[in-house]
Order: sequence, then structure tokens, then C-alpha cells
Amino acid sequence: MKLEFPAVESIDDAALAARLQHLLDHKTKPLGALGRLEALGLRLGLILGSETPVFTAPQMLVCAGDHGLAARGVSAYPSDVTWQMVENFLAGGAAVSVLARQHGLALTVVDCGVRHDFAVAGPSRDGDAPAGEQQSVGVRSAAPREGLRILKVAPGTADAASGPAMSTAQCEAAIANGMALVRGLPGNALLLGEMGIGNSSAASLLLARLTGQDIDACTGSGTGLDAAGVARKRGLLREVLALHADAGTPLSALAAFGGFEIATLAGAVLQAAEERRVIVVDGFIASAAVLVAQALRPHVVQRCVAAHESAEPGHRLMLEALGLDPLLKLDLRLGEGSGAALAWPLLESACRILREMASFEAAGVSQREV
Amino acid sequence: MKLEFPAVESIDDAALAARLQHLLDHKTKPLGALGRLEALGLRLGLILGSETPVFTAPQMLVCAGDHGLAARGVSAYPSDVTWQMVENFLAGGAAVSVLARQHGLALTVVDCGVRHDFAVAGPSRDGDAPAGEQQSVGVRSAAPREGLRILKVAPGTADAASGPAMSTAQCEAAIANGMALVRGLPGNALLLGEMGIGNSSAASLLLARLTGQDIDACTGSGTGLDAAGVARKRGLLREVLALHADAGTPLSALAAFGGFEIATLAGAVLQAAEERRVIVVDGFIASAAVLVAQALRPHVVQRCVAAHESAEPGHRLMLEALGLDPLLKLDLRLGEGSGAALAWPLLESACRILREMASFEAAGVSQREV
Repeated sequence: MKLEFPAVESIDDAALAARLQHLLDHKTKPLGALGRLEALGLRLGLILGSETPVFTAPQMLVCAGDHGLAARGVSAYPSDVTWQMVENFLAGGAAVSVLARQHGLALTVVDCGVRHDFAVAGPSRDGDAPAGEQQSVGVRSAAPREGLRILKVAPGTADAASGPAMSTAQCEAAIANGMALVRGLPGNALLLGEMGIGNSSAASLLLARLTGQDIDACTGSGTGLDAAGVARKRGLLREVLALHADAGTPLSALAAFGGFEIATLAGAVLQAAEERRVIVVDGFIASAAVLVAQALRPHVVQRCVAAHESAEPGHRLMLEALGLDPLLKLDLRLGEGSGAALAWPLLESACRILREMASFEAAGVSQREV
Repeated sequence: MKLEFPAVESIDDAALAARLQHLLDHKTKPLGALGRLEALGLRLGLILGSETPVFTAPQMLVCAGDHGLAARGVSAYPSDVTWQMVENFLAGGAAVSVLARQHGLALTVVDCGVRHDFAVAGPSRDGDAPAGEQQSVGVRSAAPREGLRILKVAPGTADAASGPAMSTAQCEAAIANGMALVRGLPGNALLLGEMGIGNSSAASLLLARLTGQDIDACTGSGTGLDAAGVARKRGLLREVLALHADAGTPLSALAAFGGFEIATLAGAVLQAAEERRVIVVDGFIASAAVLVAQALRPHVVQRCVAAHESAEPGHRLMLEALGLDPLLKLDLRLGEGSGAALAWPLLESACRILREMASFEAAGVSQREV
């Protein structure tokens, strides 16, 4: 079955934009005095199609997967950290767990392709698991765990330095998983998170291929390689990029470089964009998923808010390519959705400004004299 | 009675700092991956003297006052906007009202010297009003209003272009008011807000005098003067600065330039610093109050967190003079405490990271390989 991507229409509602701008301009404050919060309010109002936007049931989606390339030493951490961190997410001890709790964000962790069996093997299946299940490798969820979804395409991607990280079928299965996943989630806002040792390499490769920038500029220390480690990583990624010189389309590049969590996120982004959910983009890897989705459907980015600019140098290039202006710049380089969660209250504030602030007229406040 | 400033001791707890850093370094994330949030957690832990800092009853304090200089056209808005906005704060329709509600911040609005009578005249007095009451000009709170404190020193400062904005006694009364106010407030965090048409001029003058920088660099458009208005404002402020060339001490400069709300905030900052409350600094005017307090007691800034860097150009200079690194940069230029309120969830997050995140050991996550 051929994978069908959602249609993502352009949001061209000039009348609503004008009404939102008028509302913002007549709130009790000097014109534009809330700066970027006003632009954010305008954007959120447009995405949600309302002069009084209200978030319902915001969803933090943390997609996890392992990378064959990790065996070549592109990360400071062993691949086992991926599944160990998934356990940490579920136990509530990770940064994203803490921040999601703080802000009342529903947290869903997805095994998109982790090299670990989270479930006791058994005959029963995760009832609503979509396409990925059909290509999984025997991992079954006997007793589904609270907050965890098993949509495993395979236990880690293949080594991109010796062939494609994913087959076309695997890549499409992961995207379809993300689409189905979002269809099953409530709410009108999706916050993107991820976990996967080695996935900053995949994001760097996607950035280089989809924007044509040099791989060195696209590559940084990830979770904390030293200078020698970064140099090795750059050399290896340059070879990987050359090996897959023919992977020129968004889908073929995604299949070539991986990973399952990025593909699942890309599907989630496409689906959320079609449904006009607000998409809160996290760091370098989540942005790579948006870059792929945007390459497939050019109006995706209208629905996106960039939570922050990370310390990973390629992230700035990624945000520029997407035309997104990050809300925070706190030298984060953690991923998980932690930056998206940290920025979340600003989105809430922008909506509340629109809904709750008084106008000059209503409050009986004098307008400016000049 | 001579005004006594609180002692503000240096926070030099190297052992606690080391314990906090050790905790942060062993949380389940790459070393330093939460960037500036980790430095913030360290600072908050040190101020509150705890490895597991918890905020209690955070207080948003919005001090309001009018400025004689406003009659000379230094603002785009008429002075009446000061009292009108105080009413708007109390009615819940202003930006700071909305944001304080969002984040559960107790909001106290203070008439430090507004040119308006908020109370029905009557024989009874605001029971716990400190020094300011003795020099007020007949404004009495017959029926105290929820969320409003009347600590009015006078109905607006005098015109700083023809003499000191405040007498020494008035200046000290306003500072004493701020100190008494904070002594009467619960909690361990104080967020600074202000309202006063004309007060960006006072802040520019204080910045120029206390740091020695040129008045042009210290002066911007405030609530939105056009280029010609800014040029006029700069010319006038240069004359005011020259008129008070002998006002070289922090207190004499504060008296010369005003205003009552800045002096009250400076007193509040001194008291909060002595009590080791976390002081969340808002924009240009709130920072001017901190600059005065810091000039009086050099360890004040250890207790401060800069919420944001505003669009008013002098604010960057002010933060540099204080050695504070702002958390947000959203082109805000509203004041009221709006930036402090917007940054507040980040402070909460920094504390929660310390309290709730798991360590590598506790979560069973592998440490880095290299």
C-alpha cells in the first residue's frame, strides 16, 4: 500500500489576522509593547482559527529509537542509554518528565525502534498499534505500560555507513505510525520530543542533504563529544553523506540516514499540521523531523512554534532554513522535548493575553497623546 | 529618624555550591545539557540555602508613582494613565494581572505616589502603612481595596528639570515604605513590577549618573516615542543631569531624579535581599531600583535573577552594570512586572530539576563512555 501524506493547506485567513492584530493593538499596553509575545499570539490565533485561542489537552510526544551508526562512536554515550532513558521517562525522573508534570502536559513515550524489549513477550498485542507492528521483529506488548506506546519498526536502524539506515518500507511504516499516533491523541497542541543515542548524526545528515550546507557546519558535539570526537564524527558523516549521494528526495534521505524516531515524528508533524494543531518544535533532532515534513508539505511550518535555539550549532541553521524564530535561547542541548516544555508557558501566556487582557476602551485607560 | 538600611551579607557558601553542582552534574542528562537552567538552579539553591529549593508564596509587587517631568512631554502617554492602569491592575485586565493569575503569583499594587486619590476620603487609616503615611497629602484609605496598598509619599514627584524630584525626607520615606512592605509580605520570592508615566526618564538618569555612561546611550523611546520625541527627551535629560551635577551618591541621585515607585522598589529590594528572598528583576525601571539598591549594598545582586532584556536600549547597559544575564529576550517594553511574570516558570523549572530529576545511579542509566 502506497503511503499517502496528509494534505496540509495554507492558512491564509487575512480577515482573522487583521482581527487578531486589531485586538492586540487595542489591549491596555503601548503598541507592540509585549514584543514577540504578540507575534506569538497572532500565530497561535491563526493556527487555532480563533480570536480567543484556548489550548486543550496539550500532548508531549517523546519518540525513541536507536541508530546503527552509534556503534561507530558518534556519541559520548552507549546505545543502551536510549532504553534506559525511556524507563527514566516512564518513571518520572527525566527532565522532560519533570517539566511535563510542572506544566500539565500529557506525556506519551513511543518505542519507534529501540534496541530493547520493553514488554514481557506474550501472545497479546498492543491493540491500536498501527503499521509498525506489521514489520516489528517479535516485540509485543503483553501488558501495555502506562504512558508507553510500542510502535517499533525494528530494534534500531542499520548502520548508515554501510547502507541505508532504513528500507523504504520501514521508513514509510515509521511515518505512518506517527500519523496514526497523532490521530489517536486528543488536544490541539503537540510538543515534539525524542531520545536516541546517535540521532544528532542523523539530524546533521538530514540538514546537510536537505539544505545543501556543508556537513561540518551541520555537525556538533551532540551530547558532549570532545573536539577530537567532533572531528571524527564530521569525517564519518562526510563519508556517509557521500555513500548516499543519490538519496536526494526527503524520503530517500530520511531512509538513508534514519532514524525511526525522526520518521515517526515527521509523520506526527504531518498529521498534526493537517489537523491544525499547534506544533511546538524542540531542539536539533525534533527540528530535523520538521525539516523533512516541511520538505514534503510546504505549509507545515505555519503550524510550528520554535521553542528554543539549542547549543548544537546546526540548530540555528535548521531554524533559519525553516524560517522559525526561537522563543528561548538557554544553551540547552538535551532534547527529550525539554526545551518545548520550558517554552510552553509562553504559548499559554500569548493565548491568555488575547483572551483576558482588557482593551483601552473597556478599562477606561487613555490612549497615547502623540 | 535616620533611615537604617538592612545589612546584606555576602552569600559565600562554597560547600553548598559544591553540593548543588554535584547534584546537577549527576542528574540523568549529559553534563551541562540543561544549559542556563542549571546555572539558575545553582543560584536559586544558594539564595534559598537549600539543595532542594522550593518557592513559597511568590509575590508580585507593582509599585506605581507619577513624575513631575512627565508634564514636559517625555512620554507618549498622559500622567493619568498611571492611575488608570492601577485600576486596570486591580480589575485584572492588565498584562501583569493576566500573567500573575496564570502563574499563581500574589499581586500587590502599591500607590507610592500616584497623582490620584484611590480611596474615599475618610477618618480611618490604612492600618499598617509605614513611614509614607506621615508625609502623605491627605490621601487616606477609608476602605482598603483588595490588592491595593496606599503608601503615597506625595501625589507625584516634583519636576526634576527645575529642582529635585523628591526631598531627602521623601526619598527616605519611600525607601522605608518598601522595606516595611516586604517585611509584611509572606514567601521567599519577590517579583518586581512598576507603573509610572515618565519613569523611563528617571531610570535613564539614574543609569547615567550611577554608571557614568552618556545619557544618550541610556535613553530610549520608553512607551513608544517617535525619533523626534526621543531626541527631545535626550536633550531634556541631558539638562536635568547637568542641573543635578552634585547629586553623586545613590541616595542623592535617587532624590534628584525620582521617583517614588523606584525608591519604594529599592527599599523592597534591600529588605528582600537581607531576608534572602529571590528577587526577580523585570525591565528597565525595576532594574534601576536594583541599581540603586546595589549601589547601597553591594551583595544585593547575588539574590537577583534578571527575567529578561527589554527593547529599551538602556536595559542592556543596566544589566551589564549589574552583572546579570537575562533569561528571556522577547523585545518586551511594557514594564508592570510582565517580563518577571513571563520568566517565572523557568525559575520554578530550575528548582524542580534539582528536586525531582533522577540521578544516573538512581535511574540505572549508563554514564558516558568517553
